[in-house]
Amino acid sequence: MPLLVMKFGGTSVADLARIKNAAGKVQREVARGYDVIVIVSAMSGKTNELVGWVEQTSALYDAREYDAVVASGENVTAGLMALTLQEMDVPARSWQGWQVPINTTSAHASARFVGIPRTNLDAKFAEGFKVAVVAGFQGLSPEGRVTTLGRGGSDTTAVAFAAAFGAVRCDIYTDVDGIYTTDPRITDKARKLDRIAFEEMLELSSLGAKVLQTRSVELAMRFKVPLRVLSSFEDTDEHSGTLVCDEDEIMESKVVSGVAYSRDEAKITLVTVEDRPGIAAAIFGPLSDAGVNVDMIVQNISEKANGGAVTDMTFSCPVNQVGRAKKAMEDAKAAGSINYHDLNVDSDVAKVSVVGIGMRSHAGVAATMFKALSQENVNIKVIATSEIKISVLIDRKYMELAVQALHDIFELEKAD
Amino acid sequence: MPLLVMKFGGTSVADLARIKNAAGKVQREVARGYDVIVIVSAMSGKTNELVGWVEQTSALYDAREYDAVVASGENVTAGLMALTLQEMDVPARSWQGWQVPINTTSAHASARFVGIPRTNLDAKFAEGFKVAVVAGFQGLSPEGRVTTLGRGGSDTTAVAFAAAFGAVRCDIYTDVDGIYTTDPRITDKARKLDRIAFEEMLELSSLGAKVLQTRSVELAMRFKVPLRVLSSFEDTDEHSGTLVCDEDEIMESKVVSGVAYSRDEAKITLVTVEDRPGIAAAIFGPLSDAGVNVDMIVQNISEKANGGAVTDMTFSCPVNQVGRAKKAMEDAKAAGSINYHDLNVDSDVAKVSVVGIGMRSHAGVAATMFKALSQENVNIKVIATSEIKISVLIDRKYMELAVQALHDIFELEKAD
Repeated sequence: MPLLVMKFGGTSVADLARIKNAAGKVQREVARGYDVIVIVSAMSGKTNELVGWVEQTSALYDAREYDAVVASGENVTAGLMALTLQEMDVPARSWQGWQVPINTTSAHASARFVGIPRTNLDAKFAEGFKVAVVAGFQGLSPEGRVTTLGRGGSDTTAVAFAAAFGAVRCDIYTDVDGIYTTDPRITDKARKLDRIAFEEMLELSSLGAKVLQTRSVELAMRFKVPLRVLSSFEDTDEHSGTLVCDEDEIMESKVVSGVAYSRDEAKITLVTVEDRPGIAAAIFGPLSDAGVNVDMIVQNISEKANGGAVTDMTFSCPVNQVGRAKKAMEDAKAAGSINYHDLNVDSDVAKVSVVGIGMRSHAGVAATMFKALSQENVNIKVIATSEIKISVLIDRKYMELAVQALHDIFELEKAD
Repeated sequence: MPLLVMKFGGTSVADLARIKNAAGKVQREVARGYDVIVIVSAMSGKTNELVGWVEQTSALYDAREYDAVVASGENVTAGLMALTLQEMDVPARSWQGWQVPINTTSAHASARFVGIPRTNLDAKFAEGFKVAVVAGFQGLSPEGRVTTLGRGGSDTTAVAFAAAFGAVRCDIYTDVDGIYTTDPRITDKARKLDRIAFEEMLELSSLGAKVLQTRSVELAMRFKVPLRVLSSFEDTDEHSGTLVCDEDEIMESKVVSGVAYSRDEAKITLVTVEDRPGIAAAIFGPLSDAGVNVDMIVQNISEKANGGAVTDMTFSCPVNQVGRAKKAMEDAKAAGSINYHDLNVDSDVAKVSVVGIGMRSHAGVAATMFKALSQENVNIKVIATSEIKISVLIDRKYMELAVQALHDIFELEKAD
């Protein structure tokens, strides 16, 4: 029997009516001949309620107890979904993480998968059960404690099951109907993509297009699990949504697939840093220790008259981490491990990126991008590139304008 | 290390402040040198919310899924209680039913204990953990599914742990401060008992004094686990509350310990039933099948002129089961399995009982009881007796009067 994994997030199972709606989608796939593994999140709001209780109880809480409390939300949804399917005459049962078992590491609140043995679920499918409803986001540690996987863990659970059970596909039902060339709130020319490559999706999610968690896309890419993103709230069929797949399965990919952005960035420049071996480590080590997520890094070296070298070191981070970053740099300066003349912060920047596998074989993408921005008089503050992505930092007030201009110049409104 | 079991019901852990209050009581016992097993219920209201969702999802729900959903409430409290204790520097961890494991039968929603192996908890106590916080009301079936024990299951969990771990005592924290000679709402002469025998408590709980579930008292009696009932909401010490214990531990027990009542009873009389072997089974079999909880039964035989015998058969049941009882009798009559001339229902009766171990060695208790009722002109409709209890059915309007009169005549307001 071909097997399908279907994942429903918190808003898709927010109440009994929505659980019923989701169950209808499962029933349809069973009618098509699939065995189905359904991965469910907690009803929306429930996880936050539980997390709130834990945090109010204990500031430095024991992560093992946090996990034991928080994982209960998914167990409730799994049972209710199984009951709903049974009401529709679909043979189903719920599975909690320890029952499967979903073996994970002991890193509570951010556990990683160790393995998902197929024995227990396979036995139930062999008995005639058509659907296994699995509580997402959780697992079992080697010590026999309940673990959770951290934010986005339910998407990752879905992909892990799809990989372990050789699913034909992993369908992620969410509150949007697919992946767009850019945010439709910024330009109504944004177009839903039928297909997108894993690598492109990875760049888009880490750039702030929050439909899929980065970690689940990485896992899907590694195990070549086709992922489909589609809406819980619309009638869907086998062509709905966006398929995230191996680039081999995308016939004629465009040079650029999408334009992503990240609004709340900050640019920090250390002015006149002595350039010597180990200086980067001396700067970025303390930042990492302070929990600052450094994104783009640019370094300009200028020779000094006396033969030494100084540099301006510029990096970007989320704007709400600026305080932490400044303190880490000041502490490192006070401790004598780095030296700099000045520390400048620009908190009013945004990041805009174009992403596309096609860039690998097409020159001139960067030139086209810079030309489009220049025509709109948008000043570029920092540039960073990867194989399939070009990102720029610009003044925040130009962000929407830049996204629209780039969407236009790469003609993303046109179908593939 | 001597071990104590402490159980906190739903109102005692209704919010984080109350969980903290309960944890304070646990901390105090740890300071006294006990290892403690804490049994917790779900935060009050949570179980009803979960049950409501299940019932709305499915009228004839799968009890296995019901259990998987409903048991999650206790898991939340267990984790929060463990965290609260850790905040107080008490080494504690939470245990879900499957982790202990609490082995039960597969009778979902009304499972019974099979065994509680000590290995896992003992290992943690040996490591220096002082408190094991166990989710009450739940267990693990031989098939590896989550079970629940039915209403009152958390009290029963507490007693079962006390028995399995050889606890010195099982303290049941609740919203009353002990067991009273009668309901204080009926007479302000009602007095809290320091001690009461298991057998007396059993009669009192099954007669409607709902502080402890019958099942937990039965289990405590069988394993000779001293039970203490005391208040979560007052400062308590080792003399607080009421100790429910073996009668050997009660030095000079009074003849009568308490007066119980049950308000909403009905009396049903089948008039002129043919008396023949098997007639009782022919009547009470169908009643049992119809789910009628028959309590008192009285039969009066009168010889007929022709040598046969007829009888009036009277029984009592809760007033809300009268409809079911009548239908069961009419169906049995229509089917020819019983015959009767008339069926009379009296829906306005109440049951009043005096309970006391001392009755076994004292004659005249019944006579004293009947005299007291007669002095108040209370007509007795049905009498039933057991070794340690005398119950009467009377008109409901006299119930409070009867309770007060009996409380007075047996001088229950005086201390032991």
